[in-house]
Amino acid sequence: MKFIESIKFNSDGLVPAIIQDAENNQVLMMAWMNKESLLKTLETGNTVFWSRSRQKFWMKGETSGHTQKVVAMYLDCDGDTLLIKVNQKGAACHEGYRSCFFRKIDEKDYSLVVCEKQLESPEKIYKKKNE
Amino acid sequence: MKFIESIKFNSDGLVPAIIQDAENNQVLMMAWMNKESLLKTLETGNTVFWSRSRQKFWMKGETSGHTQKVVAMYLDCDGDTLLIKVNQKGAACHEGYRSCFFRKIDEKDYSLVVCEKQLESPEKIYKKKNE
Repeated sequence: MKFIESIKFNSDGLVPAIIQDAENNQVLMMAWMNKESLLKTLETGNTVFWSRSRQKFWMKGETSGHTQKVVAMYLDCDGDTLLIKVNQKGAACHEGYRSCFFRKIDEKDYSLVVCEKQLESPEKIYKKKNE
Repeated sequence: MKFIESIKFNSDGLVPAIIQDAENNQVLMMAWMNKESLLKTLETGNTVFWSRSRQKFWMKGETSGHTQKVVAMYLDCDGDTLLIKVNQKGAACHEGYRSCFFRKIDEKDYSLVVCEKQLESPEKIYKKKNE
């Protein structure tokens, strides 16, 4: 696991992972990994993160079905950020948008403007969980 | 500054900013901003970061000339990550590569493989500083 030795995890043992759509290079989200979730990602071929708020592993799409299949991984020059290209199934965002960056900052008044189409309602995504 | 009120800065007062090439959507780097560097970014139209190691502002390209002109900015659903599309002049990476993610993780042996062409040698970039 040569590259893992090159990663500089932060004081909480975490490294940020930028998730990018392998098809069109859209940035979908950013989440955090610890060493174990990174190993699980490599083992399963699907992204697995560490939830800082819930303090547990979180396989992307576990409940929503919106999984991310890893296509390629990159480590930056400083060894403290990962870039992962994925095949995204459905919406990456829990709010039902393809990308978590669905709000653009307006150049004139600095308000947040929704700039993507909502693919699914969050309620529908949540409903799936209980089916 | 409506959107700034929506940003959840971390306990160090920082927010990660993913920098993406506006032309081809290549992810170039990730760096950190505090409120002040974000305001400087808006004022100048060029990315300004907060250096955690040097504890000071850092206008991208200040010494190398490899500036980043802001084209568009996005805030994610959780309000804790920025995505900034830029016009990148030259190499974004201090090691002379277009992107800081110039090392790909080999699928078979997990070694780090350089996958980009070096545009300039770091020595040349450094030399510029003293000219």
